[in-house]
Amino acid sequence: MNELVSIVMGSDSDLEVMRECADVLKDFGVNFDMQVLSAHRTPALVADFARQAVKKGLKVIIAGAGGAAHLAGAVAANTTLPVIGVPLAATQMNGLDALLATVQMPAGVPVATVAVGKPGARNAGLLAVQILGLSDAKLAGKLRKFKDSLVESSRAKNKKLQEKLRK
Amino acid sequence: MNELVSIVMGSDSDLEVMRECADVLKDFGVNFDMQVLSAHRTPALVADFARQAVKKGLKVIIAGAGGAAHLAGAVAANTTLPVIGVPLAATQMNGLDALLATVQMPAGVPVATVAVGKPGARNAGLLAVQILGLSDAKLAGKLRKFKDSLVESSRAKNKKLQEKLRK
Amino acid sequence: MNELVSIVMGSDSDLEVMRECADVLKDFGVNFDMQVLSAHRTPALVADFARQAVKKGLKVIIAGAGGAAHLAGAVAANTTLPVIGVPLAATQMNGLDALLATVQMPAGVPVATVAVGKPGARNAGLLAVQILGLSDAKLAGKLRKFKDSLVESSRAKNKKLQEKLRK
Amino acid sequence: MNELVSIVMGSDSDLEVMRECADVLKDFGVNFDMQVLSAHRTPALVADFARQAVKKGLKVIIAGAGGAAHLAGAVAANTTLPVIGVPLAATQMNGLDALLATVQMPAGVPVATVAVGKPGARNAGLLAVQILGLSDAKLAGKLRKFKDSLVESSRAKNKKLQEKLRK
Amino acid sequence: MNELVSIVMGSDSDLEVMRECADVLKDFGVNFDMQVLSAHRTPALVADFARQAVKKGLKVIIAGAGGAAHLAGAVAANTTLPVIGVPLAATQMNGLDALLATVQMPAGVPVATVAVGKPGARNAGLLAVQILGLSDAKLAGKLRKFKDSLVESSRAKNKKLQEKLRK
Amino acid sequence: MNELVSIVMGSDSDLEVMRECADVLKDFGVNFDMQVLSAHRTPALVADFARQAVKKGLKVIIAGAGGAAHLAGAVAANTTLPVIGVPLAATQMNGLDALLATVQMPAGVPVATVAVGKPGARNAGLLAVQILGLSDAKLAGKLRKFKDSLVESSRAKNKKLQEKLRK
Amino acid sequence: MNELVSIVMGSDSDLEVMRECADVLKDFGVNFDMQVLSAHRTPALVADFARQAVKKGLKVIIAGAGGAAHLAGAVAANTTLPVIGVPLAATQMNGLDALLATVQMPAGVPVATVAVGKPGARNAGLLAVQILGLSDAKLAGKLRKFKDSLVESSRAKNKKLQEKLRK
Amino acid sequence: MNELVSIVMGSDSDLEVMRECADVLKDFGVNFDMQVLSAHRTPALVADFARQAVKKGLKVIIAGAGGAAHLAGAVAANTTLPVIGVPLAATQMNGLDALLATVQMPAGVPVATVAVGKPGARNAGLLAVQILGLSDAKLAGKLRKFKDSLVESSRAKNKKLQEKLRK
Repeated sequence: MNELVSIVMGSDSDLEVMRECADVLKDFGVNFDMQVLSAHRTPALVADFARQAVKKGLKVIIAGAGGAAHLAGAVAANTTLPVIGVPLAATQMNGLDALLATVQMPAGVPVATVAVGKPGARNAGLLAVQILGLSDAKLAGKLRKFKDSLVESSRAKNKKLQEKLRK
Repeated sequence: MNELVSIVMGSDSDLEVMRECADVLKDFGVNFDMQVLSAHRTPALVADFARQAVKKGLKVIIAGAGGAAHLAGAVAANTTLPVIGVPLAATQMNGLDALLATVQMPAGVPVATVAVGKPGARNAGLLAVQILGLSDAKLAGKLRKFKDSLVESSRAKNKKLQEKLRK
Repeated sequence: MNELVSIVMGSDSDLEVMRECADVLKDFGVNFDMQVLSAHRTPALVADFARQAVKKGLKVIIAGAGGAAHLAGAVAANTTLPVIGVPLAATQMNGLDALLATVQMPAGVPVATVAVGKPGARNAGLLAVQILGLSDAKLAGKLRKFKDSLVESSRAKNKKLQEKLRK
Repeated sequence: MNELVSIVMGSDSDLEVMRECADVLKDFGVNFDMQVLSAHRTPALVADFARQAVKKGLKVIIAGAGGAAHLAGAVAANTTLPVIGVPLAATQMNGLDALLATVQMPAGVPVATVAVGKPGARNAGLLAVQILGLSDAKLAGKLRKFKDSLVESSRAKNKKLQEKLRK
Repeated sequence: MNELVSIVMGSDSDLEVMRECADVLKDFGVNFDMQVLSAHRTPALVADFARQAVKKGLKVIIAGAGGAAHLAGAVAANTTLPVIGVPLAATQMNGLDALLATVQMPAGVPVATVAVGKPGARNAGLLAVQILGLSDAKLAGKLRKFKDSLVESSRAKNKKLQEKLRK
Repeated sequence: MNELVSIVMGSDSDLEVMRECADVLKDFGVNFDMQVLSAHRTPALVADFARQAVKKGLKVIIAGAGGAAHLAGAVAANTTLPVIGVPLAATQMNGLDALLATVQMPAGVPVATVAVGKPGARNAGLLAVQILGLSDAKLAGKLRKFKDSLVESSRAKNKKLQEKLRK
Repeated sequence: MNELVSIVMGSDSDLEVMRECADVLKDFGVNFDMQVLSAHRTPALVADFARQAVKKGLKVIIAGAGGAAHLAGAVAANTTLPVIGVPLAATQMNGLDALLATVQMPAGVPVATVAVGKPGARNAGLLAVQILGLSDAKLAGKLRKFKDSLVESSRAKNKKLQEKLRK
Repeated sequence: MNELVSIVMGSDSDLEVMRECADVLKDFGVNFDMQVLSAHRTPALVADFARQAVKKGLKVIIAGAGGAAHLAGAVAANTTLPVIGVPLAATQMNGLDALLATVQMPAGVPVATVAVGKPGARNAGLLAVQILGLSDAKLAGKLRKFKDSLVESSRAKNKKLQEKLRK
């Protein structure tokens, strides 16, 4: 079966955070691949990758990068697929640089930006699943269950807290 | 024909910016509706709206809000559809408040955030089209043409600049 | 006896900070409960909780959350009780995201925002006591004593410093 | 009848914004006074004012100031009443200075901080009403009506938008 | 005679600021061209332009862009020539977004970043002249004169001020 | 002999940083005292202290505080002596809150603000010595020597670096 | 009679703001001169000026600059006199750049920094007077009167407000 | 053989970061020296150094400093050579102070600013090589190889990732 989602990241040091994406996609049973591709070190590879994404059957691309985080934008510049950007906190600027460099795209070339770091990486995976779920009833069902699980897990934490407080 | 996209905004004063979304969707021939709904003034309406979105056949929800911009998050909390958040510069904080309040969502509840203000509103429309285009070949074709038009318009601007410089 | 104050927090990982609230309320002998409730994971529970708060006899609600901190706002949207928001430093943004997402509420739906993190959590408890003290002479008396104790403890620290310096 | 709320501001140039507070209190029929008092120019007056606030029958104090906004903190330092701080955008820093100087109070001396500028001033008035409404059934009733009016006004704006869109 | 410097900008709306570059280069008699090229709208043109820059005899490239300002970085990714980035204040973020997106480049791909807006555009031109002046004695001489002229113009302003003060 | 400088700090936890002030004053042989005084916990003591400062023969007051750092401003409000403010990094805001709360004083009530944290505390001591040195030839002489020692110590570091590099 | 204070500014465009300094010094009858001197355009003049300041009988130097505001620091590097820095809002960064570039001086070279823009310029003048007042009983007396006038003017504004409210 | 590049830094504590510059220059076989020179502690040495730089045959100067980082600007003020500024994260402000103090130079005196900290220091070295490579065919060749090596190293990281994923 084909990959539907491609996760790209600027450096292998981003793997620890971007793995969260992969974990979510695995949990939902979505096929994906994962690559180190740099907007600044391997710009031609990024452009080629993005230009062939539609033909290869990809549906969503997730790009994580830090600092002057151009990767998501560079991918979005070269494809009509939805591109999700994960700003990473890779410099002294706590990810504010990556956030602004990812989200402040000019009209015409959107990047769907999520939160800085791990929660963002996780949500990038989920957003991809939500997009795929629009034309995949099975995924849509899993998303409803996941939504319920959020409630359950929050309730469970609350229950635990109540028990703790009673002591 | 059914609406596929719903554009919601916190206040009618947001219309001037959020109209950019509508313009893009019209250009691409995507059916949409548009509503004033406030996470803080009409929370029950927001929750109802979001909970019924799937049943009503909606595919993507775009939410624009300023300040402590909770609208996109409040919608995302109540649906499994992809939600696009447009941070608006409605306070003295130049939209930084709205950007952080929209993008820094916790793991489990993504909001696809775009740029602050008009470019973001335009891109929110485009992102919705990109998502719908995954299962609509006609839209996908229009997106390719739009992509070409970006190149053409940029080239035209460059040509004009060259003429100006020659004088 | 009934709870007068309810402390809610977005996640159980917020407990370490929000416990400061509880400690203050205990010190003043104010009945309270404490719950994990998430604006984004359990939005319906938050809305129900807030809508029934008046009937349950609650007087003040304290809500602590980090990131795109919507909890206090979501509660405030659903009650006429005073709501105190504690922004938590739960992301790489050092709590600036939570501060802006908590304080920059639109006209019509106030959230009484206190400092980021532990000092804020403590002060949220105190602010609740100050509010309750308006119609509870005993509490008002305790607040006067607490005020005096601040002076005493500061004087004591100064005295210690003087002794240290003399050596 | 006695004033229950006192609105103080650092300078008469703050009146334009702080008037929003007064308007809300008038709408709710709450007696208030309003004064120019500066933490830096008239510190003794501020301290006297705050120390006598309880005796004078005041219940809530609202303080608006810009820049190194110490007024709310200076009042809070001298009273056990709840103090609401309105950060004003009076310098080139867009109110970020006033926000941080108002909200980042140390443990022991809370200031209930609202949004920067006019929405904050309005909400300061409302928050005062919410606090007073805890022991005033009539005010509590008005607050419920006000809450309903928020819904109505938002619905009305939405209706207007729908009419506009239909044309 | 060949162009030695190429000035590129993301949009024709950047011309007003980037013209400052051109003015400096004209003043120093340095041949240059000027183009509208967008990292996001015409990524292939940017890459081609940058890859052929050395062959075309270019020595320095100046790139101005706003928002998620990737243009300078995209050029730098594709050439070994020195690239000067001018961050433009094109969004609500006052150029902070463009500054961080231009300057925070990863190790391996430098962008010589100058100030936001017009002073930066002027300095980009000067920096290019300084670089060219290293192997062009005539330019180096002009730079020394320019340096002297800065002193003279500052002295003249001071003299004028002294006359004003005497009156 | 009388104290000429008084160092005050909001909390005893500020001692570690404010000790730098004391060290400088000791090095220059300037008499000083040091106190814990809080603008928010002991406002009356702060006001009394500042009002009697001139009579007690003090010449300069140095105030260090973090968060909503009002101490320097509260002292300055109550004296005509020069007041030096040291912003401390005591919260999650890295001292930005303290810096703005210390420096952004309104016209009429200056606070001489120095850098955040230890370098600032050191410089506060030096600034006090510079002020006292205006009417104390011996101190002025020591300041010239100190200035020379800065050059010497920097030169020594450079020499060491050269030796390191030669190896 | 000799000048005791020197006001320097980076550019003649800073005059509008720095004039506030001059006005204060005139009001207090303090002799001063005023010059355009740039740390970046006329560095040698700045160094000479600062090195001869003591010999010329100057007591305090006030330096105003915007952007990468080095003027105050460059003066302080070359004198043992107290140097007051006024950060000016001369770029898109609203004076935050000038504030940080003025205040964040390294240990050993203090700059007494005041607020950004006009209030800061006024306070720089006042701070100079406070410093001079330490050894000039007449000035000290004027400062006490000025302090009283702050109270009077604030009271007058309050009175006016009360009259306005009564109508 | 003569040094072509001079690396200066404000303090020996900056060596750990600025060593990255030196490493790059060594790798490219470019002669350089390295010095501790402080704009604030040894201003005369900085000015002398910069004024003699051209005569000594230097081509590029790299200056690293933290806080109110004036070193690069002070050098640029005194030479017509291209000056590269490396902002260092030496204070609580995470390098934002150094970045703004380095990059926001006034028109007439450019500083080629690179990223904060180590990646910036590395890139400063590379930028110097790029500038020197304009008139040194051997260096230009090495830069092309370096560019290729970036691609290779990124590809290698990607290959490693693929192997990891396959397991």
